[in-house]
Amino acid sequence: MTTHETPSTFVTLTTREDLGLPRPGVTLDPARTAIVIIDPQNDFLSPDGVAWGVVGASVTENRTVENIEALFEVGQRLQVPVFVSPHYYYAHDHQWLIEGALEKLMHDIQMFDRKGALSLEGFEGSGADWLERYEPFIAGDNVVVTTPHKVYGPETNDLVLQLRKRGITTVLLGGMSANLCTESHMRELIEQGFEVGVVADATAGARTPAGDAYAAALTNFHYIASAVVSTEEAVAGLERAFAR
Amino acid sequence: MTTHETPSTFVTLTTREDLGLPRPGVTLDPARTAIVIIDPQNDFLSPDGVAWGVVGASVTENRTVENIEALFEVGQRLQVPVFVSPHYYYAHDHQWLIEGALEKLMHDIQMFDRKGALSLEGFEGSGADWLERYEPFIAGDNVVVTTPHKVYGPETNDLVLQLRKRGITTVLLGGMSANLCTESHMRELIEQGFEVGVVADATAGARTPAGDAYAAALTNFHYIASAVVSTEEAVAGLERAFAR
Amino acid sequence: MTTHETPSTFVTLTTREDLGLPRPGVTLDPARTAIVIIDPQNDFLSPDGVAWGVVGASVTENRTVENIEALFEVGQRLQVPVFVSPHYYYAHDHQWLIEGALEKLMHDIQMFDRKGALSLEGFEGSGADWLERYEPFIAGDNVVVTTPHKVYGPETNDLVLQLRKRGITTVLLGGMSANLCTESHMRELIEQGFEVGVVADATAGARTPAGDAYAAALTNFHYIASAVVSTEEAVAGLERAFAR
Amino acid sequence: MTTHETPSTFVTLTTREDLGLPRPGVTLDPARTAIVIIDPQNDFLSPDGVAWGVVGASVTENRTVENIEALFEVGQRLQVPVFVSPHYYYAHDHQWLIEGALEKLMHDIQMFDRKGALSLEGFEGSGADWLERYEPFIAGDNVVVTTPHKVYGPETNDLVLQLRKRGITTVLLGGMSANLCTESHMRELIEQGFEVGVVADATAGARTPAGDAYAAALTNFHYIASAVVSTEEAVAGLERAFAR
Repeated sequence: MTTHETPSTFVTLTTREDLGLPRPGVTLDPARTAIVIIDPQNDFLSPDGVAWGVVGASVTENRTVENIEALFEVGQRLQVPVFVSPHYYYAHDHQWLIEGALEKLMHDIQMFDRKGALSLEGFEGSGADWLERYEPFIAGDNVVVTTPHKVYGPETNDLVLQLRKRGITTVLLGGMSANLCTESHMRELIEQGFEVGVVADATAGARTPAGDAYAAALTNFHYIASAVVSTEEAVAGLERAFAR
Repeated sequence: MTTHETPSTFVTLTTREDLGLPRPGVTLDPARTAIVIIDPQNDFLSPDGVAWGVVGASVTENRTVENIEALFEVGQRLQVPVFVSPHYYYAHDHQWLIEGALEKLMHDIQMFDRKGALSLEGFEGSGADWLERYEPFIAGDNVVVTTPHKVYGPETNDLVLQLRKRGITTVLLGGMSANLCTESHMRELIEQGFEVGVVADATAGARTPAGDAYAAALTNFHYIASAVVSTEEAVAGLERAFAR
Repeated sequence: MTTHETPSTFVTLTTREDLGLPRPGVTLDPARTAIVIIDPQNDFLSPDGVAWGVVGASVTENRTVENIEALFEVGQRLQVPVFVSPHYYYAHDHQWLIEGALEKLMHDIQMFDRKGALSLEGFEGSGADWLERYEPFIAGDNVVVTTPHKVYGPETNDLVLQLRKRGITTVLLGGMSANLCTESHMRELIEQGFEVGVVADATAGARTPAGDAYAAALTNFHYIASAVVSTEEAVAGLERAFAR
Repeated sequence: MTTHETPSTFVTLTTREDLGLPRPGVTLDPARTAIVIIDPQNDFLSPDGVAWGVVGASVTENRTVENIEALFEVGQRLQVPVFVSPHYYYAHDHQWLIEGALEKLMHDIQMFDRKGALSLEGFEGSGADWLERYEPFIAGDNVVVTTPHKVYGPETNDLVLQLRKRGITTVLLGGMSANLCTESHMRELIEQGFEVGVVADATAGARTPAGDAYAAALTNFHYIASAVVSTEEAVAGLERAFAR
């Protein structure tokens, strides 16, 4: 079968640590690679956000806020395509008859709530709004903001289409939160045939009696993704791949 | 908005332990409830299977083989609809250019390999075949065997359609392996609007330096599903719901 | 296999004309039925809209504007759930590298263009806005406005999830335009296991040298849907089903 | 935004006739292009098939059997990747509670029926089997047979994944029948971001009082696809693109 070759000059990012699993790696063809950031919103990343009580410790420990910013920064600097997949809930989402545990919790605490899709009343600075320090990056020409996902994955929004319409085949993934929207995005992008590398310290997870969500997600990233790398490795790889 | 009510006589299964998360529960309307079993195949569940070396300890500890059988048994006895989602790989799947860690591993160890979709040569008793003790159950009239999934979730097969074409809205989920196909099925079924309860001891996971896959999955089941129950609780609930 | 029965009191809508094909019909269980309206926006339905030149004749002939309004009206009067799936394009959608014929045309004529998902600048009264006479209906409590679809079908938005989260299994479908977004919604909803009836005079299509789009769609509705009915039949059926 | 360029040496296929619509064309990068053939099975293409009575005239007129063979032949000769998406029904599919018109018809006439997914009893030469003259081609190394689709489109099988796992972005589409499975495949592949050209005389449609299905499909191909070409044009284009 005729297949395309990977030029030997392309940069490849590979999981550094040997955990006894294959490490296929992700190849950063600059014409086909994008950064994808999930839920870079106040409710997760600001100390004032409704989820900070359970995710704050992990966000602080991983330096998640700074690491997501480093991905936005390298994207803007080198014109790497960046896709942001946000999370919004409207009044009608609170009428769902079927909910899982965290869906119910998010609705109970009014996480990501907006007045309506065609209303910006009360949006600015709310929990659903971007973390303020990311706004100049998200306003950039290299950034596509997708429609909102509604559970955890991109099945309900246009992320996959937006990536494909630009010929993207390879994704470096970060954002919030580790075992929920980030992991569901990783899983769905892989089901859709993308090559996915996870930037493991550009995400964080909740700590509750149900378990350490970041630890669970990290385990699954290693089993499922093509590579698990640090923000430092991701930025360095993108600099080599895109700085032509 | 007009909505359907849940008759007070319906059985509801709820996560027993209080882990600080909401416990919405799953309601077992016998006209709309099914059991879904993932990958009840030799490569995971037989000591001769290629994955037994990494999953055997967890399968033994959870009594996964016996618990999956108990779900099949109650399904047959009470005519509960059971949907089996298998995992098969053919020669052409070994030519994929893009693979994650475990996809590569499964192909390297020839897990779930079959000669071809239109060939049964070498299939009987192979790693891709059903565990022998399940065969009489899977042959039952209450069982639908879906087309194979190809990564981890049901995005690539007809499970969702088969469930919807019978009016199923609620699923009790078991099978292998915990953090890979079972969890991906849970996540996708929830993205598709099903009410999902996970039968936590009717699955098991790998133990490798990358982490305890069962522990990771269990954490995520608690965060994401509507209920996490034992096989004993699931069987008892189905008996009350279906024994009319 | 255990299945749910259709109470004999439920209203069933069936294609009236015998065209030599099976006519399975749609059963209007009031707890599980919704109206779905596609693209009720100025660019299709207003004489000032950018597509009026090619669709205006068919819209006028079918009385599409009035018929969609009749569906909105019965929905509001009887509290039938109504789901509206809109079509919006943003600046980044104009950068797609891959486009089909009508996608390219829509972008060329700036159809459904909005300034941005988080901007309402210039939106009011624009081609992307609702037809003014529908606004009081769309503001109703019985209406869910989904996220926008981006090509023709609901694969890229949350329509399927919103329907499933309310237990909807049966849909009466109208809106614009017949062979593009309406037909793609019909096809995808059927792939997702919904029972779909099309309200054939609550839609309309373009007339170009490439063919009469409404005629093509009507043929496909008859081959594919469970029922093809008029607005009058749909309203009468909903009145019987919901007027308890 | 960084995008990949189309080398000027790539072959582009464009709709020949000016029908007043944009003609974006499909670019045949040999590393990213595949042929996709739908339902090349006896029930549609053999005079003994159950659907021949309604599709035979159109199949004969379009020379569909010969044209599909020409696509298989050029695929084998030049090692163009070919993906075949078949249609099979099993006993459990006959228990669906929800069906559209043609779904019901297909089940009534036992179209594409097989004994079971794990049984080949009675399969050889049946209506569900390949047209005999295609068998040597489908056995070729350049061919991937996907899992069966179950309604009309590839939403329920692994076609999209198989294409993506090989880096395919561009598809030339033929097979049966025009307005049902072929058109649904076209629509879904476009929703998934593929560039799709339809080979208009490598398909055919039913003629019933409900309408000329081929005419309806052809109209929609022109509105929706990136190019509508003849088998002769497709073969010539592939020869230029792949014969290096």
